[in-house]
Amino acid sequence: MLVALALLCAAAPEPVKYVPRHEELKYTFGGHPPVLHLKPGTRLVSWTEDCFDGAVTRPGQLPTKVVPPGHDNPQTGPFYVDGAEPGDTIAIHIEKLSPARPQGLSSFFPGFGALNGTDRTAVLGPDLPETVWFYDVDEKAGLLRTHSTDGRATWEVPLRPFLGCLGVAPGNGEARSSIVPDSFGGNMDYASMGAGVRLMLPVNEPGALLFLGDGHARQGEGEVAGTGLETSLDVEFSVELVKKKAIGWPRLETDTHVMVLGSARPLLEAFQHATSELQKLLTSDYGLTERGAQTLLGQAAEYEIANVVDPNFTVVAKIRKAMLPRRSSPAAR
Amino acid sequence: MLVALALLCAAAPEPVKYVPRHEELKYTFGGHPPVLHLKPGTRLVSWTEDCFDGAVTRPGQLPTKVVPPGHDNPQTGPFYVDGAEPGDTIAIHIEKLSPARPQGLSSFFPGFGALNGTDRTAVLGPDLPETVWFYDVDEKAGLLRTHSTDGRATWEVPLRPFLGCLGVAPGNGEARSSIVPDSFGGNMDYASMGAGVRLMLPVNEPGALLFLGDGHARQGEGEVAGTGLETSLDVEFSVELVKKKAIGWPRLETDTHVMVLGSARPLLEAFQHATSELQKLLTSDYGLTERGAQTLLGQAAEYEIANVVDPNFTVVAKIRKAMLPRRSSPAAR
Amino acid sequence: MLVALALLCAAAPEPVKYVPRHEELKYTFGGHPPVLHLKPGTRLVSWTEDCFDGAVTRPGQLPTKVVPPGHDNPQTGPFYVDGAEPGDTIAIHIEKLSPARPQGLSSFFPGFGALNGTDRTAVLGPDLPETVWFYDVDEKAGLLRTHSTDGRATWEVPLRPFLGCLGVAPGNGEARSSIVPDSFGGNMDYASMGAGVRLMLPVNEPGALLFLGDGHARQGEGEVAGTGLETSLDVEFSVELVKKKAIGWPRLETDTHVMVLGSARPLLEAFQHATSELQKLLTSDYGLTERGAQTLLGQAAEYEIANVVDPNFTVVAKIRKAMLPRRSSPAAR
Amino acid sequence: MLVALALLCAAAPEPVKYVPRHEELKYTFGGHPPVLHLKPGTRLVSWTEDCFDGAVTRPGQLPTKVVPPGHDNPQTGPFYVDGAEPGDTIAIHIEKLSPARPQGLSSFFPGFGALNGTDRTAVLGPDLPETVWFYDVDEKAGLLRTHSTDGRATWEVPLRPFLGCLGVAPGNGEARSSIVPDSFGGNMDYASMGAGVRLMLPVNEPGALLFLGDGHARQGEGEVAGTGLETSLDVEFSVELVKKKAIGWPRLETDTHVMVLGSARPLLEAFQHATSELQKLLTSDYGLTERGAQTLLGQAAEYEIANVVDPNFTVVAKIRKAMLPRRSSPAAR
Repeated sequence: MLVALALLCAAAPEPVKYVPRHEELKYTFGGHPPVLHLKPGTRLVSWTEDCFDGAVTRPGQLPTKVVPPGHDNPQTGPFYVDGAEPGDTIAIHIEKLSPARPQGLSSFFPGFGALNGTDRTAVLGPDLPETVWFYDVDEKAGLLRTHSTDGRATWEVPLRPFLGCLGVAPGNGEARSSIVPDSFGGNMDYASMGAGVRLMLPVNEPGALLFLGDGHARQGEGEVAGTGLETSLDVEFSVELVKKKAIGWPRLETDTHVMVLGSARPLLEAFQHATSELQKLLTSDYGLTERGAQTLLGQAAEYEIANVVDPNFTVVAKIRKAMLPRRSSPAAR
Repeated sequence: MLVALALLCAAAPEPVKYVPRHEELKYTFGGHPPVLHLKPGTRLVSWTEDCFDGAVTRPGQLPTKVVPPGHDNPQTGPFYVDGAEPGDTIAIHIEKLSPARPQGLSSFFPGFGALNGTDRTAVLGPDLPETVWFYDVDEKAGLLRTHSTDGRATWEVPLRPFLGCLGVAPGNGEARSSIVPDSFGGNMDYASMGAGVRLMLPVNEPGALLFLGDGHARQGEGEVAGTGLETSLDVEFSVELVKKKAIGWPRLETDTHVMVLGSARPLLEAFQHATSELQKLLTSDYGLTERGAQTLLGQAAEYEIANVVDPNFTVVAKIRKAMLPRRSSPAAR
Repeated sequence: MLVALALLCAAAPEPVKYVPRHEELKYTFGGHPPVLHLKPGTRLVSWTEDCFDGAVTRPGQLPTKVVPPGHDNPQTGPFYVDGAEPGDTIAIHIEKLSPARPQGLSSFFPGFGALNGTDRTAVLGPDLPETVWFYDVDEKAGLLRTHSTDGRATWEVPLRPFLGCLGVAPGNGEARSSIVPDSFGGNMDYASMGAGVRLMLPVNEPGALLFLGDGHARQGEGEVAGTGLETSLDVEFSVELVKKKAIGWPRLETDTHVMVLGSARPLLEAFQHATSELQKLLTSDYGLTERGAQTLLGQAAEYEIANVVDPNFTVVAKIRKAMLPRRSSPAAR
Repeated sequence: MLVALALLCAAAPEPVKYVPRHEELKYTFGGHPPVLHLKPGTRLVSWTEDCFDGAVTRPGQLPTKVVPPGHDNPQTGPFYVDGAEPGDTIAIHIEKLSPARPQGLSSFFPGFGALNGTDRTAVLGPDLPETVWFYDVDEKAGLLRTHSTDGRATWEVPLRPFLGCLGVAPGNGEARSSIVPDSFGGNMDYASMGAGVRLMLPVNEPGALLFLGDGHARQGEGEVAGTGLETSLDVEFSVELVKKKAIGWPRLETDTHVMVLGSARPLLEAFQHATSELQKLLTSDYGLTERGAQTLLGQAAEYEIANVVDPNFTVVAKIRKAMLPRRSSPAAR
């Protein structure tokens, strides 16, 4: 009995807690020494600031006025994963996410969003007016609630918290802005990056150097308005280390699907990265031939557009586990 | 009783039957006189040839060898919708679709598909060999079944027939290839274009001149292999005429969603067309303001990538009916 | 002496004249019977209407108000080139171009241009105001002259007339809008398409069915404002027939360069079409190997962006004749 | 007289020399402390390694085998420009460039170059074999010379050395790979970046932190083969400091033109950045209105495609100085 307990303790070490002070937040993936070492399997209890650097606290404040330049998407971390080396993969298990503030903020601001000129898509037309909506979190009802400016109408959407950013150091000495998603993960803004998932990221530098941030209480697909319901999150997760397995793009596993997240600009290239990496996964992990993987994808692939607003866009290629061939019986030739 | 029956007959006129001979098939949207006049509400019982012009009939035949040049996606029609004029919209109600042949063909051929390119246009390498898979239709079990070349493994996918092409004459004297989707509909290759849906298309020429074809027994999202499970279909549908309602892009209604299908190249523009037309739908049909529509889309939009292989790509922007504000209570300001 | 004269006459047949009445103008490439048969070598003396269908005749008129829908870029033709069959190429020699009106019109209008939302790039911002500038042609000085709205400043640009549109029927029963450029030529809007050039176009239908229109008195590269200095032109040209030579994209020869014009959307694909066809030209006409053509292009290619405003964009890939290897001594391996 | 001489000396301080050892080369823009402080106006005599890290020294060596990962485009620097602060602009005057080795290397390697893809992303087919051509520099004749593999043919191209990379720290703590061009300059690969030009770059961090590298003995437009004639360069330049002038993108001035270099992916966005910044230049420096700048650009803009192979592409928007309105007489309204 005692022995069993000891083993259990070994298998599930004490949770570790790390909550950054504001001045410890980071604004790049890469370029920073670790704040903490994490043993694989250890649960980390942490917290993330919202995408506005916590600067928008009441109606009437406009992000473009109150967020200091370069302070978008502050990150918690980086965490050094013990034993992780280039050529390995780490898998983050998100155990728990909950809003750490009673509001989610939806903002529409100049130079951002999928249907207007941005700092990436130079157009001459005037900007649309910056607008911020406050949505109140009703955690018990599992909802967020907002109301019209005249106060006469209300609107509710289900609470569905997730991390907009999860990424590692890019490698080769690069330090990339916290608003960019790429093969190292980063600002992927995928609405299903919530509790229960297993996210695999490639290791580019010793210790992987994991960052997280940009919590959302909810977001539609594509993040077409430029933001979701931005909020601060309480986060619990653990990291699994997969030695000597190199992956090209972040892979995600849920109860029902295996997925790949490709990020690029233009949108088609994000689609192609996600699809080709999913095809590699099918051949390496499920024994399909390249041609076999293609007929399977042709009839069974699913896609989600995670975001079309970040400097790179993110597309998710998925396959339902129920459609996967069993390893022992490759579906195709 | 008799009166009621008479009224019923008036409301549901005799179905009309039209099955084209091979030489009556069309290969452009536009450029052809009507084969038949259709009264709104009349059920048409018809048939469509497969995308290979019916030329691939047995294993070993390669589409690039047996399909005559310019004979891809043969169309049935066009049908002249009585009373339809430019500025109106027609709504096609697909009543019934079933495979008219016992097979669905999945083909991979050179210069087609979403996986060819550079390290940025992530691709798999050399031009891939043309391949055709035959999937047997098991209509009773609701499945299609194929097997590996060595005969030792089988693979099944659910039957889910739909029309790859539904389109009207483009207007302004244009005649467009039957492989192109655009604002007039056409080769949208959307896997949910099955029985039960209501598809709205703009009227560009008197009578709308409706074409249909390119049946699929099933297809994954994106049609990444270049084809779905291509087949001939028995089709039943009726057309509703909506006078003096102009739409910019095809709109689709199912039990659960309202949707818009945008088609363009590059992929982002398809996304933008679908999103901006969905936003117009929200403001015109649901009383939202432009800003209100944006916060709603930001938290509730869903997307599907219908195809990335046709000369234009098709993206579907959707909103769940349950998330729509009631007309009388606009959700936002 | 008399004999020589007779021979000369045979070699240079009588010029033929064709000037369309307004109702004979065409608005699609393809879809029309020929207005005239042309023998190869015959000089045709003709005329083209301006891109506004001749409807903007005085300051204050806005194109979006006075041009009938679908009446952009009216075309003269089509001309049936005797003996031209699919698989052949025709080469148009532009002999003479001169403004047929004393003005060139530069217009900026909503939904058009390279720096704003268009009907192809859906954005939400408000449109920029429609504006028309009248430039006076001073043919003697070789200039066009305009002045500021306050009348205090003038501005002059060199006269450099060219045809915005030159195209043939697309084949396979298609009829394409006169605002589109593609592999059949069409609305390429290339500022060097002036007198003295030799433009090769593929033959897709018997007789090729040649159209021309959309004269410009001048235009900058890219046509970034959405229009050049639009005008009606007097045109003289002859057609050469090159039997059994198939080309993929329009090729252009000037005194100094050989060129290919690729048209597509997105811009990169126009670049790729032009480049790959230029590479084919180098291997087929100049005896280079594929690798050799690449090192030559790598060090000697030149490019021009003809337009980025038409539904397809046009990129010109060029090589200076002086940099071409002599046929007998392939430069590379 | 003596006084004047003293002043002259003050105006043109002693040249400074800096030649990095191999281990001092850098592989990111940003992320490094300065190697030297530079006073504005001081001529720096320096040197740059070639893009292959100096690792390809003889025929038969393939870059993908001999260049260490992450060691592409080694940079000399960074140089701290005294007095430069965010919001300022620095202008680099390239005084002298000459090949520091007797060869230029042209390499074609897998996954790089502009010619790989689908029938829309027009490409030539299978992954092409890695190839390196050695071109001998004949500085006296102003030529580079290569020959065919069978030794029977030679090919010459004019010598035209330029710097592929010139960039500053990106700011906000970012460190970007030396293969990327962006608003901070970087790997723009523009064939006219040679002796005699004045390149303006924005200052994002104190001292600007200037990097340079990636010399080419020559390159065609677009760098379509993936490389130019890569070489090591002897470089002399000085830096001018323009206080309190913020620019959005690199601006270039030559004897004949003013230009802007926009870098982005997809290609259209590079075009849009270059064009909109050129328009800003016309309104701020030449007194044009926004509409006036547009009609001028519409009739007088010129473009060059600098490269389409780097992770961002670079497009140059230019206007001939002779076409610029005089400040005192705005051309348009």
